[in-house]
Amino acid sequence: MSDPLRVAIVGTGFMGRMHAHAWRTAPRFFDLPREPQVVLLAGSDAARTAAAAERFGIPESTDDWTNILARGDIDAVDICTPGDTHAEIALAALSAGLHVLCEKPLANDVADAERMAAAGIAAAERGIVAMCGFSYRRTPALAFARRLIEEGRIGAVRHVRAQYLQDWLVDPDAPFTWRLDRARAGSGTLGDIGAHSIDTAQWLTGSPITAVSAVTRTFVTDRPVLDERVGLGGRAEAGARREQVTVDDATAFTASFADGALGVFEATRMATGHRNANRIEISGDRGAVSFDFSRMNELQFADATLPAGEQGFRRIDVTEPEHPYAGAWWPAGHGLGYEHLFTHQSVDFVRAVAGETAPHPSFADAAQVQRVLDAVERSAAADSARTWVTQVEGVRS
Amino acid sequence: MSDPLRVAIVGTGFMGRMHAHAWRTAPRFFDLPREPQVVLLAGSDAARTAAAAERFGIPESTDDWTNILARGDIDAVDICTPGDTHAEIALAALSAGLHVLCEKPLANDVADAERMAAAGIAAAERGIVAMCGFSYRRTPALAFARRLIEEGRIGAVRHVRAQYLQDWLVDPDAPFTWRLDRARAGSGTLGDIGAHSIDTAQWLTGSPITAVSAVTRTFVTDRPVLDERVGLGGRAEAGARREQVTVDDATAFTASFADGALGVFEATRMATGHRNANRIEISGDRGAVSFDFSRMNELQFADATLPAGEQGFRRIDVTEPEHPYAGAWWPAGHGLGYEHLFTHQSVDFVRAVAGETAPHPSFADAAQVQRVLDAVERSAAADSARTWVTQVEGVRS
Amino acid sequence: MSDPLRVAIVGTGFMGRMHAHAWRTAPRFFDLPREPQVVLLAGSDAARTAAAAERFGIPESTDDWTNILARGDIDAVDICTPGDTHAEIALAALSAGLHVLCEKPLANDVADAERMAAAGIAAAERGIVAMCGFSYRRTPALAFARRLIEEGRIGAVRHVRAQYLQDWLVDPDAPFTWRLDRARAGSGTLGDIGAHSIDTAQWLTGSPITAVSAVTRTFVTDRPVLDERVGLGGRAEAGARREQVTVDDATAFTASFADGALGVFEATRMATGHRNANRIEISGDRGAVSFDFSRMNELQFADATLPAGEQGFRRIDVTEPEHPYAGAWWPAGHGLGYEHLFTHQSVDFVRAVAGETAPHPSFADAAQVQRVLDAVERSAAADSARTWVTQVEGVRS
Amino acid sequence: MSDPLRVAIVGTGFMGRMHAHAWRTAPRFFDLPREPQVVLLAGSDAARTAAAAERFGIPESTDDWTNILARGDIDAVDICTPGDTHAEIALAALSAGLHVLCEKPLANDVADAERMAAAGIAAAERGIVAMCGFSYRRTPALAFARRLIEEGRIGAVRHVRAQYLQDWLVDPDAPFTWRLDRARAGSGTLGDIGAHSIDTAQWLTGSPITAVSAVTRTFVTDRPVLDERVGLGGRAEAGARREQVTVDDATAFTASFADGALGVFEATRMATGHRNANRIEISGDRGAVSFDFSRMNELQFADATLPAGEQGFRRIDVTEPEHPYAGAWWPAGHGLGYEHLFTHQSVDFVRAVAGETAPHPSFADAAQVQRVLDAVERSAAADSARTWVTQVEGVRS
Repeated sequence: MSDPLRVAIVGTGFMGRMHAHAWRTAPRFFDLPREPQVVLLAGSDAARTAAAAERFGIPESTDDWTNILARGDIDAVDICTPGDTHAEIALAALSAGLHVLCEKPLANDVADAERMAAAGIAAAERGIVAMCGFSYRRTPALAFARRLIEEGRIGAVRHVRAQYLQDWLVDPDAPFTWRLDRARAGSGTLGDIGAHSIDTAQWLTGSPITAVSAVTRTFVTDRPVLDERVGLGGRAEAGARREQVTVDDATAFTASFADGALGVFEATRMATGHRNANRIEISGDRGAVSFDFSRMNELQFADATLPAGEQGFRRIDVTEPEHPYAGAWWPAGHGLGYEHLFTHQSVDFVRAVAGETAPHPSFADAAQVQRVLDAVERSAAADSARTWVTQVEGVRS
Repeated sequence: MSDPLRVAIVGTGFMGRMHAHAWRTAPRFFDLPREPQVVLLAGSDAARTAAAAERFGIPESTDDWTNILARGDIDAVDICTPGDTHAEIALAALSAGLHVLCEKPLANDVADAERMAAAGIAAAERGIVAMCGFSYRRTPALAFARRLIEEGRIGAVRHVRAQYLQDWLVDPDAPFTWRLDRARAGSGTLGDIGAHSIDTAQWLTGSPITAVSAVTRTFVTDRPVLDERVGLGGRAEAGARREQVTVDDATAFTASFADGALGVFEATRMATGHRNANRIEISGDRGAVSFDFSRMNELQFADATLPAGEQGFRRIDVTEPEHPYAGAWWPAGHGLGYEHLFTHQSVDFVRAVAGETAPHPSFADAAQVQRVLDAVERSAAADSARTWVTQVEGVRS
Repeated sequence: MSDPLRVAIVGTGFMGRMHAHAWRTAPRFFDLPREPQVVLLAGSDAARTAAAAERFGIPESTDDWTNILARGDIDAVDICTPGDTHAEIALAALSAGLHVLCEKPLANDVADAERMAAAGIAAAERGIVAMCGFSYRRTPALAFARRLIEEGRIGAVRHVRAQYLQDWLVDPDAPFTWRLDRARAGSGTLGDIGAHSIDTAQWLTGSPITAVSAVTRTFVTDRPVLDERVGLGGRAEAGARREQVTVDDATAFTASFADGALGVFEATRMATGHRNANRIEISGDRGAVSFDFSRMNELQFADATLPAGEQGFRRIDVTEPEHPYAGAWWPAGHGLGYEHLFTHQSVDFVRAVAGETAPHPSFADAAQVQRVLDAVERSAAADSARTWVTQVEGVRS
Repeated sequence: MSDPLRVAIVGTGFMGRMHAHAWRTAPRFFDLPREPQVVLLAGSDAARTAAAAERFGIPESTDDWTNILARGDIDAVDICTPGDTHAEIALAALSAGLHVLCEKPLANDVADAERMAAAGIAAAERGIVAMCGFSYRRTPALAFARRLIEEGRIGAVRHVRAQYLQDWLVDPDAPFTWRLDRARAGSGTLGDIGAHSIDTAQWLTGSPITAVSAVTRTFVTDRPVLDERVGLGGRAEAGARREQVTVDDATAFTASFADGALGVFEATRMATGHRNANRIEISGDRGAVSFDFSRMNELQFADATLPAGEQGFRRIDVTEPEHPYAGAWWPAGHGLGYEHLFTHQSVDFVRAVAGETAPHPSFADAAQVQRVLDAVERSAAADSARTWVTQVEGVRS
């Protein structure tokens, strides 16, 4: 590993910290063509960024991300900021010849996403990597599901059922956060977690979504403001100022895939009792796979080619040496956690930079997710206008 | 139990046999105001009906259901035939002053269902019971879920997520049956199993569905014909004549409830690996209940009023004496099976006949289900016409 | 079914009622060589027995079981009384040429069990059936497990781990019952539910237990007396008279099987949170089966001959037509309940009477269970005497 | 974190790597009184140790562990070698005034363990920490279970049922490893994984085991030798030399706890289908907790003080800020993996060194585990001699 890959992270929040840990950990467990080194942390507030850098174990910090480009000694930028800033930073970095890893969703609108996809394609021609951080692709169980599907083990796909269920907004007094502000977050539940389901579904099936019919709900329309907060939790003081929630609490949609499969998607932060159940099940004519991130080390696989009396969902602990990523870690049966997705993402990014593999999801892949998000939002707006929903006639409530 | 309730069953198939067993069993385990006695079985073929009667333990049989009314010694008719015959039999029986238990779906179209609902209301004024056989209401775990919801234990309902997943049509050579013929069955997966989800959802929440947006799929458009078959299984010979499938294999829809809740429904006979997973989960602002018929003796209950660190779905074995229906059976922990739903239905019917309770679902309740089914079908037809689906623009497949 | 099999039941409790239901139901769902008819119920109190007979749907009753033999028109006796009466009734019936179905445990001591086994063997030579009611053998999932094991699908057996976990005695004020009285019940948890585990283990593996090392506990040594009770539940009034508990609340033992397998058994009525978890798992060198009666329609099967990355416990819904007993009932995925074990037992008994199959468990099989129970009790007595337990030296408590 | 804690690791295997990762990660997520820095890696082969040091990110290496003491700049020794070396290194380090973290089991016999315990107590008086690496104590779900038990939430403990089920030795041709050599490993399954169950059980209940009755099995008595291997997996070439297995494949024992609870323990590497199911369930008179490491982020909790109809095991995702350790990591519902146990162990060790907490398990705690292991082995030896096992009389095999 004589040739280091010098990385700058933009963003001092939960994701910045996660990525710093991933870059630090990846070369300790994987044989990498270049050793990633996070040398700079960029944030918006100088003191806070300096403190975060010390905490994350990053030697230098700056409150101006353009310094990353100005320095000339950085190989790659890792963008961990809210979606409204992605396009500007990513486009500047790519045009400066830096590799880019950009958190999802790629952008807050399709226009930006398309520009970034185009820039990503142009960059690829120059050997520059542009990759989007749909980290769930790096879950061993989901990567294994994709392998099974590619090998034809579930046959032709007929159904995709995806639920991303969280419950941190069930309480009407759960505090306001930037994730509830359309201006910063782009969209709410849909863009934050529904985007993961969309990417996972398209990636697993290898088939894009072509049409949707959607409905959204905002069950709690204003929330108390908190001065400081960490993660997704916290609780505001009584009598706190309340801020308008401008995004969706929940979005559901049906979807058609290009290959004819029927999709049903639900994303919500109001699924009482589910902390973080990112679930997807895919039914084919020869088998099915089923996954729930709250048991992330397991894949349920049903093989419909077995005798009827022996069929059933089989719980596979995806921790064997032959499973994706798993061989680098502990003995079989000793599971991984959430953060490993990001370590695997760093691994894949470094290998893509070295030309060993094609980066995925590319900005173009991520722009397709953005197009679906956009279609969902347009469809949901039509729902509000009642232009397509079919009324049940003569309902007696 | 000095006063018997003389019952005639119409229908010699799987459901007729089930109902016969239920009538026979109910008085052995429940204290009933009248003892039900099945005295007559009506079918379409004389020999086959006679054989079925002997098998079911019914003393007499007929190949003409109008004999039931003509005899004058029958108190109640139990209709277990395909949906296209329900209206005629039920209306005749009610107008003859007989109590009626009618299998679901109530009818094959809204017009019939409305006429039956009106007749049911008129009959009620004369003390005549008209009840529809949405048997899942008689699952102890679902009846207990309803009790919890009525008591406010999950608070205001926000989400209904219902999946009815079967897989007996995954194989393209699974044989043709009357259930795949629109003329007889009325609709396919939607009317057969989706109807259960709709009834359960409206009943549990106490709130009707007011609007839907639906999509359907028929993945396998023709199937081989079999001479005889039992249940849902079987496999045709190679080279058999193939019949056109005129119903849906799968239907998915989003739904608005009158109280503002957001519903997501999926019904399919193509959910590889799921024999009969009738699932429903309801999220409220104070808790949630979750149920899967493939583990029918369990209710999962999440109580969001507990301290955050102690929350979680709790698996309740709904087999305690204080649970609905359960006290009549075995010691706690000794579960019931599918057929018990029908025994409980018989119990509830007899009690309604005796005026002890109001019959539910009434024909009016069942007509509301029919209206939703109709709206789903109209919406799905619009989908086929692409008049409302929102296209994803610029998809690259 | 021209030739009826006339049955008399002895015992008016929970088991008598269950058996009556089973005899009534069996011919409605299975093609039987003879039609069982319960014609007489024998109990100890005339009025109570007459009331039970009416409730169970049995035409005649008696308070003297010897009338069964005296009448001369009875073909079979079904013994559902506590264990201390089994030997006398069964031996008399067999010597009178009646077929006998006797509830488990076969007897309250080895001497009686051996006499009964000898009588059973002698009766068999005259074409008379003697069968013991270890009903769990009739669970489709366990019968399917045995088929898999017989076919070599799990290879050579190495481990048996059996837990029978109930919790109806957790509360120190749960009432006294005859099941807690050694004089009547023979033994406590061990004989009541541990006996099931022993029979199931020996039957599934086809290998007898040859040696044990056991420990028992009675955590609550006296309990309040209740006037009347149903099932296993109930709660006594404060200040009620308390009766001495003379049986074990819990028994655990390790066991050696003749084929070298290592068994670990635990039976308890103090397993808080488990209503009736009758669990058994058997590990072989090619696979494993795992079962929990609280999900009685499922068998977990692990096939170790699959590629390592595809292995895992597979949840098989044992409701397919090709599964034992299941084809007589409902479509796949529509599960059975506790009572079906007894219906299946009646079916197997009638077929054995007709000579179609060998009855199992025979009285000899059941006597082997009794020998193990006896060894466990002797071993546990040695434990109390501290003659074999190995002390941990120098423990600091 | 101005004052670093300079650590040397002894051992270059799987555990050495794990500990290196833990020391590196702990200060990035926890506020620690001193920052741990691994400055030296000691191994037995110079070249291999140097390579491992580079891989683990450790600046210096040595092939002579006594250099650790000689250097004078090391604060703590972390012993990750097989059990036969623990006593010598730990005693030397403690007497040199270094803090010691020693992997489990503490020693290969009671005599060594007692000497180490005594040295640990003496060291504590000088402010020196001696801690043993029973890492499962650092699982958030188990630490939360202990909190619930300490708070009386399950009441008086009656039952401990512990199973540690692995299956990496099911295949008779799975290769030989030092873990199968009594001389190096001390004992086999018992000492490797059974020791974890013993420690967890005594720690959770707060009550020591006072007596045991044990049985062991070695199902496969020789295995092929492999040149190199990683983790627990691998497969030898056909015709490879075979080495004698001198340890147990499986051990089962019943146990008495000082507080009267009844324990049932099983540890095996032959539990087909279970990669690493470290399970423990504790039943009290007010509740129960149940845990399976293969779903390490979950604790099942049954609260028997709830109304009977609402009881049941509740699946708690132990990822809330108020749960032990969890608040330092990701938002609720984003689980941790195996390695986090070691990070938490490093955290606790550093805090103990700083005097903030008492180290646990102390060497004395670990010596009590060793005494139980010894009693189990002595009891199992008696079993082999058939001096206490109770024979089942008259078994017919």
